[in-house]
Parts: sequence; structure tokens; C-alpha cells
Amino acid sequence: MSIIVQKYGGTSVADKDRLFNVARRVKEYYTKGNKVVVVVSAQGDTTDDLIEKAKEINESPSKREMDVLLNTGEQISMSLLAMALEKLNCPVISLTGWQVGIRTNSQHGNARIKRVDSERILRELDQNKIVIVAGFQGVNRYDDITTLGRGGSDTTAVAIAAAIHADLCQIYTDVSGVYTCDPRIVPDATQLSDITFDEMIELASLGAQVLHNRSVELAKKFNINLEVLSSFEEKPGTIVKGDHSVEKMLVRGIARDNDVARITLKNIDDTPGKAFVVFSLLSKKNINVDIILQSLGRNGKQDITFTVPESMLESAVQILNDEIKLVGAEEIVYDKDVSKVSAVGAGMASNPGVAADMFEALYNADINIQMISTSEIKISVLVKQEDADAAVRAIHDKFGLADI
Amino acid sequence: MSIIVQKYGGTSVADKDRLFNVARRVKEYYTKGNKVVVVVSAQGDTTDDLIEKAKEINESPSKREMDVLLNTGEQISMSLLAMALEKLNCPVISLTGWQVGIRTNSQHGNARIKRVDSERILRELDQNKIVIVAGFQGVNRYDDITTLGRGGSDTTAVAIAAAIHADLCQIYTDVSGVYTCDPRIVPDATQLSDITFDEMIELASLGAQVLHNRSVELAKKFNINLEVLSSFEEKPGTIVKGDHSVEKMLVRGIARDNDVARITLKNIDDTPGKAFVVFSLLSKKNINVDIILQSLGRNGKQDITFTVPESMLESAVQILNDEIKLVGAEEIVYDKDVSKVSAVGAGMASNPGVAADMFEALYNADINIQMISTSEIKISVLVKQEDADAAVRAIHDKFGLADI
Repeated sequence: MSIIVQKYGGTSVADKDRLFNVARRVKEYYTKGNKVVVVVSAQGDTTDDLIEKAKEINESPSKREMDVLLNTGEQISMSLLAMALEKLNCPVISLTGWQVGIRTNSQHGNARIKRVDSERILRELDQNKIVIVAGFQGVNRYDDITTLGRGGSDTTAVAIAAAIHADLCQIYTDVSGVYTCDPRIVPDATQLSDITFDEMIELASLGAQVLHNRSVELAKKFNINLEVLSSFEEKPGTIVKGDHSVEKMLVRGIARDNDVARITLKNIDDTPGKAFVVFSLLSKKNINVDIILQSLGRNGKQDITFTVPESMLESAVQILNDEIKLVGAEEIVYDKDVSKVSAVGAGMASNPGVAADMFEALYNADINIQMISTSEIKISVLVKQEDADAAVRAIHDKFGLADI
Repeated sequence: MSIIVQKYGGTSVADKDRLFNVARRVKEYYTKGNKVVVVVSAQGDTTDDLIEKAKEINESPSKREMDVLLNTGEQISMSLLAMALEKLNCPVISLTGWQVGIRTNSQHGNARIKRVDSERILRELDQNKIVIVAGFQGVNRYDDITTLGRGGSDTTAVAIAAAIHADLCQIYTDVSGVYTCDPRIVPDATQLSDITFDEMIELASLGAQVLHNRSVELAKKFNINLEVLSSFEEKPGTIVKGDHSVEKMLVRGIARDNDVARITLKNIDDTPGKAFVVFSLLSKKNINVDIILQSLGRNGKQDITFTVPESMLESAVQILNDEIKLVGAEEIVYDKDVSKVSAVGAGMASNPGVAADMFEALYNADINIQMISTSEIKISVLVKQEDADAAVRAIHDKFGLADI
């Protein structure tokens, strides 16, 4: 007998048929003797519909009242799923965030979980009930309703798994697991049977949109066994877990991120402190800078090149132009048609050959590398956006990921 | 400065325009320096839509989960009203039943309020906020969500008014107040400026569907000043209050109830205990019996005639037929085409002339009286349904109610 937390996203509970699909799966785990806690998101487009309803009334409502409104989405889906399980003759109880005691800070719309009370959930599990919990929501210290922002329901599931010491936390989604690469780019991408927390974090932040990083970081912190799997298929997913293996695959997955733009400040004075000026200006506007390349000085001038999310390009260029004297650049140029392609794998940390193999693959594919960035477990390159898919395929092939 | 509780029904908050209509009215009271608590129902058909959604999944869901689901209706309308008030630059906060601390028993779907905590509401009022509270909902001692059943939001408003010692509790509805009679039957029916709790209770239970009796009884218990008024018009409504007047109008209003059917048990043995047998059979099936008439015995036989709600006629006749031997009647006959017409007024208690005047009015209108029932403050007669409207008009005229 295990304690299992299962999380189902909005697509998985979108309508009657899907609700019963989920209910049958939950019942199967329950009937095998497991204690099952189910975390649900709002059905399909419910959250978007509620936001639209609010905007009709007030285009900028307070975040507190928005949270009160959005909160109803998960409350509806959790009660409907409970009714579906009742229909299948399962003892079941649904609980909201405040009923469980999911305590958060007061940052409405993007609250962080501070504590999860385990008492009510454990009491219901002890009475052999299936417990359904509303994802994405909690209450702050004043008993005001909060929502957790993006990736919130995944985070709810992991936090509950940690609080009740669950043996496994399953995240059901519309893909069957974590792949070596996006199957839309590389048709022979293969599903990984397992992956480490660190690798998952790199892959997630690099554009492989399976699990939100918040939930993976939380799972890593409490060493929760996560499984990512499909709610529409009957097959094992990918286990995300701590790094216990002795021998490791060098490269586990290849990610591509098109939401990136490159900015170059040309002919900046080659004096100390210029880089500091540039990046503190951007940081004040909450613009995230990723890869940075500073050219060697020449004739007392140098170039600084860096990448930002494409959505922040406009405001980045504007703030830099506004302060062009302070920055001291002769010209600001930028390019939106770039992509970041990354190879991720805990095994590469101690193996310098990985970078060389990656660059060779790109060279053979006749793809020019604009920028390079490395960390302990990843190598990222910036390439022309039109080359990105070819780059992904070339690297995927080079590391033989189709054959694992 | 007064503390005012206002309750707005589902029709009053059904869409954007109506929400702003309510918001402007609330703001008006607030701007005049009053402390305002607003109780709202779910928007328009929301509750029915949610019930339908549930029935698609499970035709007989548990009442607990149904309450979890229905609860979202008021949560949506209260947050939208809060956003409308924010748009009008009013400081406002919305609170659910559990956030206020509306404590009920555990009868899901039809819970009774046991206690209302005043602390949170008073704290928010002290901070000069308009407080919006979800009607119709509460929590039981296990923190499980309950709903209050029919008339629930009115009851929430009155219970809050009692808890925070409000000066006035206004129930906004789609009629402008309490009338001497249904204006659809008697066009010159007039609106009463005030009415006593007892009169209101008789009128409400007799088919003048303005206020639910639960809320009036609660208001009577705590001596809350109630006002029934229209959310669509700008004029005073009807005050419902304790009986402080020295001189009273004899008759205050005339009600008609078509949801009534007459059953006669013919030629029952004229022996003690027969009536007991009949009415205990009906009571076991939760069938409410209203007017009862027992004929004088003749040749050792007698008839028993009584009325039941029309919706319960079928099951009443069935149980009596099933137990026909026990009942000992020769024949069971019934008539659905009857109506109960009642005159209500606290003043008639000590005035026997009222009944005579009423019967005279009916005689002059050539209307036959089938049965009669009287209480301290009402006289009801059973007439043919086709005669009911004429009976109402005749009595209304007789007591000069158009001229008050």
C-alpha cells in the first residue's frame, strides 16, 4: 500500500467523459489498496472565462478579488470529480485550499506556499476516503483566498505529497512523459524512463514545457518521487527523482527556445563598470538577461551582446536608448530571429568532450553558432531561428538519443 | 450614521449593467456615511446551471458535494460586485460564508444557521470598507461547506444584521414592497408602508412570495427592522417590524394560493381514532395537511375532508388507497381545482365582525365557500379555483384596501 498524490490538469477534467476517465483511473489505484489524493485544476477554459467575466466589469480589478473569483474554477472541478467517483461507488471527499490548510504568503495572483497542514487530509485518508483537493489555491494568514500563479496546481500536488509523506506524486498531463526532445521537431525523440531533478529543471526552463520549475524545485527540496505521465494513455511516464545513479548518460535531452532575442551594444568604451551600468538598468525594469558575451576590447572600444526574452525586447531597447549617454554605446542593434538550443545532462559536468561533440554536430549541419553558454549540466547555443530545428535534430542524432 | 445590511437577489446581480446598478446604490448609502454590508445571491440562473452540470455527472450526487459546487455561485457574484465597486472607487472587500464565520448545522442543502461571527465583518467596517458577503452559504463544525436552502440569502442577511446589531436590513427584490394583494389579480392593490412580522409570516406562507418565512421569523426573534424594496426603482419599500401600533388596520392583505387540493374520505366509521390513523399515515410520508373538516356522524358514518399541497396530492391519495382497509373509508374523492383565499391582519384577532364581512363579500359575489379555517390573524376559505380571483377582488374591495 502506498500513498499516492495525483494531479490532473484542466484538459484532463475538461468535460464529463474526461472526468469519468480520471475517476476510473483514480478508482483503479484506490481499489489496489493505495491511499489516493487527487489535485485538480479548473476545467478547460474556465479560468480564462472567469478572467474575461471580470474584465467586463473592471479592466484592472484588485488581485485579491480576482483570486476570490478564480478560486471557484477548481472548486467546481473538484466537486464534479467527487460526484463522478460517487457514481463509481467510491467513498470520496473534496476539499478546498482553505479546508486543507494550504497556507501561503499574501502575494495575490502569484502566492507562494508556506505550509500545508496534513491533518485533515490524513484524517480523511484514514477513513478510507479518496481525497480530492483544489489545486492552484490557498489562504494567507488573514484567511484571504490566494492563487498560486503559473504552475500552481503542480506545486499544490508536490507540496501535499511532501506534507503527507507520499510515496509518489504523479503529474498527469497531455503528453506521455519527458522526451529527449520535442517530438514535433525530432520525430524519433524517445521518452525518458527517468531524469534527475536538476536535468528536469534545466529542460523545463529551456522550453520543454512539461512541468513547471516551481514544482520540480519543491520536489527536489523534499526529495519527492515525481512521475510525469499522460491522462489519456495507459503507460508508464517519466520518473523525476534525485540523482542516485553511478553511471550516467552524458546528454539526456535537447531543448529549443524561440522566445529569445539578441541585443548588441556596439563600440562601448572599454572601461570598467560599463557592463554594470547596462545590466543594472535592465534589472531595474525586471528584464531577465540570459547569455552574455563581451568582446575583447579593440582601440579602447568593445561590444556587449546579450539575450533577453523576446517579449521584453522592446522595453529593453527603449530603456537602453533612453540612457544611451550613460551606456555610452555608439549603436544598439538587435535580432529577434534567433533561438537557443540546449543539450542537458547531469553526466556532462565532468566531460569536456560533450561540448566538442555538440559543436561538431552543428558544424557538420552547416549551422553557425552565434553565442555559447555552459553550466554544470547544460550547453546552450544561440543560432538563427530558421536553423534551430535542424540544430536540435543534429545534436539529438549526435548523442544517439533516438536509440536509448 | 447607521449600519445597514442590504441583500440583493439573483435577478438584481444577473449581468454587468445590473451589477453596476447595485454598486451605485451601495455607493450612495456608503457615501452618506453609513456602514454597509451587502449580501448577494448567485447571478441569475447560475445555481440552476450548476445543478444541471452536476446531474450530467451523477443524477444523485451527495448533498455535501452539491453544496461545494453550488457555493461557487455566490462566490462569483460577490467578487464581481466587489470589482464593480472598485471601479467606482469604493474601498470594498468580499467574504465567503466561511470567512465571515457563518456557522450552520450539518444538514447539507438545507442547513440552519447556528451562529454568525461578527468579528471579521466589524473589523472590515471599522476600516471603512464596504463588506460584501456571499448569501446562502455557511460551514458546519467540521469546516465543511453547507448551503441554506430556499430563502437562504434573505436568512443570511437577517442573521448578519442580528450579529452586528444593524439598524436596518434591506431586502432588495424585483417587487417594490408588500402589497395588500397580488397586483396581477387586483390592479388597484396598494403597497403597504409597514406590516408586522406576524402578518408578514401569514402572508408569506399564504402565497404572497416576497420574503421567505425563515428570514421573517429570524427578524422577529431578534427584532430586526426589515425593509422589502425594489432594486430597480428609487422609492421606499415596505417596513416589516414588531407590533408597536395601538390602533391597527383590521385586514392588511389578501393572499391567494392555487397550490392546494382537497381530499374527502367518504363514509368512514364514526369511531374514535380514525382521524388519527389518517393523519399519521400522511405525516409519515411528509405530507402537510392544512385545512381539516370533519363532518358530523350520521348512521355511524362520517366524512373527513382536508387539503394538501397540489404537488403532494398523488402520493397522498396513493398512501390512503394502499391502506384503505386501515382507513376504513368507502371512497376517496379529490379535487385539484380549488384555491385558498386568505385575509390577514393582526387587528382581526379581537374582532369577530371580520369573518362575517368576508363571508358577506363572497356571498354578494355569488362565490361558494367549501371550507373555512381561521387563526388569530387570518381567515382562509377554500373556493373553486375559477372563483379565486373574483373572491380576492371582492374581499379586497370589502375591506377598502385600495384606499389605504
